[in-house]
Amino acid sequence: MSMLEPVHKVLQATGHDAIALVPGANFLRVFGKDFHQMERPLVVVVPKSGVPVAVVPNLELGSFAPIGFPGEVFDWRDEDGYMGAFKAAGAALPQLAKGARVGVEGQRMRVFDLLALQEVLSGVTFVDAHAAISAIRLCKTLEEIAALREAIKRSEVALEATLMQVKVGMTEKEVEAILLSELFRAGCDGLSFDPIVAAGDNAAKPHASARADYHIKAGDALLFDFGGRYNHFSADITRTFFVGHVSDHDLAFYDTVLAANTKGREISRPGMTASDVDDEVCKVLERSQFAAFKRHKTGHGLGLDVHEAPQIMRGNNQVLEPGMVFTIEPGLYRDGEAGVRIEDDVVVTENGIESLTMFPRELRVIG
Amino acid sequence: MSMLEPVHKVLQATGHDAIALVPGANFLRVFGKDFHQMERPLVVVVPKSGVPVAVVPNLELGSFAPIGFPGEVFDWRDEDGYMGAFKAAGAALPQLAKGARVGVEGQRMRVFDLLALQEVLSGVTFVDAHAAISAIRLCKTLEEIAALREAIKRSEVALEATLMQVKVGMTEKEVEAILLSELFRAGCDGLSFDPIVAAGDNAAKPHASARADYHIKAGDALLFDFGGRYNHFSADITRTFFVGHVSDHDLAFYDTVLAANTKGREISRPGMTASDVDDEVCKVLERSQFAAFKRHKTGHGLGLDVHEAPQIMRGNNQVLEPGMVFTIEPGLYRDGEAGVRIEDDVVVTENGIESLTMFPRELRVIG
Repeated sequence: MSMLEPVHKVLQATGHDAIALVPGANFLRVFGKDFHQMERPLVVVVPKSGVPVAVVPNLELGSFAPIGFPGEVFDWRDEDGYMGAFKAAGAALPQLAKGARVGVEGQRMRVFDLLALQEVLSGVTFVDAHAAISAIRLCKTLEEIAALREAIKRSEVALEATLMQVKVGMTEKEVEAILLSELFRAGCDGLSFDPIVAAGDNAAKPHASARADYHIKAGDALLFDFGGRYNHFSADITRTFFVGHVSDHDLAFYDTVLAANTKGREISRPGMTASDVDDEVCKVLERSQFAAFKRHKTGHGLGLDVHEAPQIMRGNNQVLEPGMVFTIEPGLYRDGEAGVRIEDDVVVTENGIESLTMFPRELRVIG
Repeated sequence: MSMLEPVHKVLQATGHDAIALVPGANFLRVFGKDFHQMERPLVVVVPKSGVPVAVVPNLELGSFAPIGFPGEVFDWRDEDGYMGAFKAAGAALPQLAKGARVGVEGQRMRVFDLLALQEVLSGVTFVDAHAAISAIRLCKTLEEIAALREAIKRSEVALEATLMQVKVGMTEKEVEAILLSELFRAGCDGLSFDPIVAAGDNAAKPHASARADYHIKAGDALLFDFGGRYNHFSADITRTFFVGHVSDHDLAFYDTVLAANTKGREISRPGMTASDVDDEVCKVLERSQFAAFKRHKTGHGLGLDVHEAPQIMRGNNQVLEPGMVFTIEPGLYRDGEAGVRIEDDVVVTENGIESLTMFPRELRVIG
């Protein structure tokens, strides 16, 4: 089987005349190798018919060659700039004439890559085919699920080790430093993203940054949204704890989120749409006394990208299939007071889901 | 002073009718806050005249509000999608009519952001203004240099701690795991990038990935290209060691790179162009017996982005000024055999440069 077979399936499904790929999750899935995305563009164009082309920085050739790319490679050196290589690549794609349509990864390709392609493929229309291209990664292989499981297991070890060290009076930054250190001690080989460690009112911001000047106090919610990477796959876990003690109001608040999370894990199964999952989970929040504090959808796909398809949200009619992996992460946020989110990573099985996240969800008072 | 003053300077310098910003280093410098860039677009448009607008995911409003954005905010919720907010934002920018030019960060903005802007600002031309926008970060403040110095110091502590643990027979992956753990133990609060730990023939690839199946052997070059982040600023350090012993040939190879690195640190001073620095450094390599093994330019700017202006390469006529920070990282790569790179982070002073990197450069045999 050609390594480009998944790309040819996308070409068939979309009817586009070519697909362009840049380094990132889709590139890694197709070619088994990833590259930095900085100031040096690296772009592959796979036409429906004819020879694929790649524009590659000269200093990456040693890493690119082992891929065994089945097409023509145009490299460029720092001192010459990249437009010469793009021009040569464009000339090698005469089939992409005026009126042709090229699908690109809209959420991944940067504008300067697009501008270079537009300059050398005049008259060609570039369309956002992010969803269609990323669909090649929708259903995970057993090997991929094993990597995810390992990333999650190691991340959970790090969380437990961190909790043992949290004390009232520490700053969020101090707790974050402990978590980071523990993630690598647990054997993660990267971070899924910069972790969120947020206490008290900061936990009410879904994507908060840890503060160096806020000292965690008794009664605070303490939210961790984090994950380590293992073998390119990313864990994405959220747990919320209370420090020292928890009020009855916060207990009810927490239990509402937990009920929504539980609902999501109970009802998800193949054949359902992502929209239906979100709808059922959201209803638990919307029918509660805390309906006003809901801010976001239920979850997102998870794999080589931390946020990928399927987006678990109303309006997304993607039908769930075995092998899809996504997060179930309902949350409630009382501005200026507290936030609670409980996030699991689940894989769709033949008759439901299995949660890859094993960390207990029952309310836990720490410190 | 308005927080938008740096953006207005870019507008004046470029003559564009508006500048659009997305989360990232420039956004962080202007607004003092960064945001995740995943599936939810967040875009700010600052017109030459009239009220700036921002399109912001609803769940980020709690983090966005404290910025004190001096303009109109259009938020959108997951269930509604983002085009409604873009349309409202476009309608609030009637001055951006047909023929207007909007500068964007070509190396940072993604294609789906651009497509959304193009849809609601019809007839407007979007141009890559990455260099002009990033120029607001060219000269670092004393506070920024202090953060860089701290990131570098902590990274160097981690490197020394790692070297003490390296033994013949370890895999590159094992050494990488030690380095990652030591970076966070040393108090870094993030990674500048996924580190490169490459031995033997792998060191001949400028951007190699650590292998789990290669055991480091005596006589190998062992190259570390890595950095920890501190307070948003990124260290970027390369040192190459030899394991057990070093051949005379490798010694001459190493000394050639060291001579180029030394040259770069000796000659760089304000008033010189980036092109001249690269030229002088490259000549040391090009006039050596190892000229055929040179693969890349001398270096790049360093700050909130790991690779930013000024690019230290021939053809870049940017004049160096006090406060600019860049890397001096000549390298030589013998395919299939060994690679050596020695990278320092330097700040331009009133009459030369100061190397923020203090780690010794003399050839060191470890393990």
